[in-house]
Amino acid sequence: MSGSPPAASWLGIPAGSGFGLENLPYGVFSTGRDNRPRSGVAIGDQILDLTGVTGDPVHGTGSLNAFMAQGPRRWQTLRADLVTWLTDERHRRRVEPHLVPRGEARLHLPVEIADYVDFYSSRDHAENLGRILRPGGAPLTPNWLHMPLGYHGRAGTVVVSGTPVTRPRGQRRGPADDTPDFGPSQRLDIEAEIGFVVGSPSPAGRPVALPDLPRHVFGVCLLNDWSARDLQAWEYVPLGPFLGKSFLTSVSPWVVPLAALEAARIRPPRREVTPLPYLDDAAAEPWGLDIQLEVRLNGHLVSRPPFRLMYWTPAQQLAHLTVNGASLRTGDLFASGTVSGPARHQSGSFIELSWGGREPLELPDGSVRVFLQDGDHVTITAVAPGRHGETLSFGEVAGRVQPAAALTSQTASVPGPLGV
Amino acid sequence: MSGSPPAASWLGIPAGSGFGLENLPYGVFSTGRDNRPRSGVAIGDQILDLTGVTGDPVHGTGSLNAFMAQGPRRWQTLRADLVTWLTDERHRRRVEPHLVPRGEARLHLPVEIADYVDFYSSRDHAENLGRILRPGGAPLTPNWLHMPLGYHGRAGTVVVSGTPVTRPRGQRRGPADDTPDFGPSQRLDIEAEIGFVVGSPSPAGRPVALPDLPRHVFGVCLLNDWSARDLQAWEYVPLGPFLGKSFLTSVSPWVVPLAALEAARIRPPRREVTPLPYLDDAAAEPWGLDIQLEVRLNGHLVSRPPFRLMYWTPAQQLAHLTVNGASLRTGDLFASGTVSGPARHQSGSFIELSWGGREPLELPDGSVRVFLQDGDHVTITAVAPGRHGETLSFGEVAGRVQPAAALTSQTASVPGPLGV
Repeated sequence: MSGSPPAASWLGIPAGSGFGLENLPYGVFSTGRDNRPRSGVAIGDQILDLTGVTGDPVHGTGSLNAFMAQGPRRWQTLRADLVTWLTDERHRRRVEPHLVPRGEARLHLPVEIADYVDFYSSRDHAENLGRILRPGGAPLTPNWLHMPLGYHGRAGTVVVSGTPVTRPRGQRRGPADDTPDFGPSQRLDIEAEIGFVVGSPSPAGRPVALPDLPRHVFGVCLLNDWSARDLQAWEYVPLGPFLGKSFLTSVSPWVVPLAALEAARIRPPRREVTPLPYLDDAAAEPWGLDIQLEVRLNGHLVSRPPFRLMYWTPAQQLAHLTVNGASLRTGDLFASGTVSGPARHQSGSFIELSWGGREPLELPDGSVRVFLQDGDHVTITAVAPGRHGETLSFGEVAGRVQPAAALTSQTASVPGPLGV
Repeated sequence: MSGSPPAASWLGIPAGSGFGLENLPYGVFSTGRDNRPRSGVAIGDQILDLTGVTGDPVHGTGSLNAFMAQGPRRWQTLRADLVTWLTDERHRRRVEPHLVPRGEARLHLPVEIADYVDFYSSRDHAENLGRILRPGGAPLTPNWLHMPLGYHGRAGTVVVSGTPVTRPRGQRRGPADDTPDFGPSQRLDIEAEIGFVVGSPSPAGRPVALPDLPRHVFGVCLLNDWSARDLQAWEYVPLGPFLGKSFLTSVSPWVVPLAALEAARIRPPRREVTPLPYLDDAAAEPWGLDIQLEVRLNGHLVSRPPFRLMYWTPAQQLAHLTVNGASLRTGDLFASGTVSGPARHQSGSFIELSWGGREPLELPDGSVRVFLQDGDHVTITAVAPGRHGETLSFGEVAGRVQPAAALTSQTASVPGPLGV
């Protein structure tokens, strides 16, 4: 976490860019002149085209998966090479032609998602939801302090930032009703989260111990787990969240390498209950991360969720996920769960910001919100400390809410190939 | 469901084979002489090598996905061609060299699984579990009669029949304990299910209406959703099953085309509650299926679960899965949930067969079981009526329980590339 400051880049990166030499996040992009999706690295307000600068076809597959599958030694080598190429003036002539202005690029989903797991690791969030949804009961279920609770989400509906969020339809049951009705969700919400992308697989039957996180996790992104609270409330007992979540999950286009976050590593909060040995990180190198999120609704800052307060770390999440013998694949994505702090304005969801819809949130433009309205635009950003005082940006994950689609079944609109 | 009987095959298929001309299930196989995994069709005790007989590289990719993605017209055409080639003596000379004895083939996972969803659609099973796990309460949760409940499982741990089942470890908490301990599952169980494989994708925002099942579902397999009941019981509130299921899910190697099941289609049981319109199949063509399962433990028949009694049909499951706008991908797998009938010997899980472990099951060899022991071998088979009195076989999904693996972390056994 120290060492001499790196040489400056010949690129002339503006101070406070967030995309300096300490970051170098990976993404997949295309341009008007070349519409093939290919891997690149964000540097300042440019993207370095990795297919061009390396000549390696692994970067031309349209996702980061093939490169991620090469494993941590290869990730280290390329990262070191990138710093050399971007700081040593002798590489400038070779490298410069492969820079593309970020503003001209279209950003794609960076990873072909294998399995997507969503955890529930903020104690403040879990307690808030317990108090809102089960008033009078214990805020935490008995298992919460013993393991990072999680569930599998739908990998096929993970999309890149900017993809419109069509309001989902489904079954909803009001508190006074015996039976559900059907219609657009009236409690559409966000969940501001951090996602962890697995690069290097692990075989079945070989749990990933706490110190082994960096052998498997390639990098970190922002994630918005859009949630329909009314659908979720009606469906989730006993099998957990399903259609209330599976319509869309957005991720940021830039994956910050785990190696970029060395200076952000901190001790996680004190554990109230000593975890079982496979989760006990008291003697391990810490994997708390000092990432500060911000949530904006239609441009107004509404929340500043602190990732540093997360009770369970990504190392514990990965250890738990694999302790039963489950294998990991390149492209697996696991997310932290909603990041919330103890204060209302640190909440990573509107169900907390509006306390179950009972205390509307006032926006600076005079409007109020409980849950999301059609047309609303939500942006989640985050920063973390880099080395030498630099600040790392995670970019953003954003999306605009669109009205529920008209219910046209395929039968009505497409000629039937089977005549049924 | 009638029509003239088809011509016999020049192959001379034994009566009662289960793999006659009405079945023609697809799988992926390799042989000692040619170890490339490739697609084939089971016919009698042979496999017809589709790469050889068609010359089409779509069948040489190592999974059925590329062919399934071509859509229902293509599925129909090949199926019609196969019948012609196997019945018309004029094709014999060309086709016969591409037949491989089934006994000489190694069978692979037939489908690259995209998302895996597990439903919970047997009313008898849901009521049994409610009575066993929540005695005194209502056997069904209030939502059960209104929608096919489901959750996402781990796609990366879906394996082909025959893969050993290593007993998972995890957190378990006894009924008298305040805190959990850690160790091998002591309540390892099966769930006998039917799986449905999506061939043709559907776009986001376009729910698949009840009649559209055959546009999207390519075929049907057997599935064993191995379950660690002690891990599951401790973890599943409030996010649903996770590590109690994610260690392994086995599927049969043969995918029976949906088109083969025309004669097995029946009306599902009467619904106690009229479902919301998107799930109401009263006026639709029925998608109940008369599939009879059998479960064997170490060769002894222990259960005969009747799929015909399932409350929710695959058409309703698919309509529900997509009604919130979720897209489908080629390779998506959704399973019925445990198939159980009203009688004890129709139960698709040992937690039901032994009534929560309280009433041990006696086997003909004098041994007793509550849950699975190391070394136990479980086989699930199924048959369905074909046209013209033929019986279709689904083959089998089988697995043997192995002891929990020694807990060697990767750190202990592999040199660390990152030195952490």
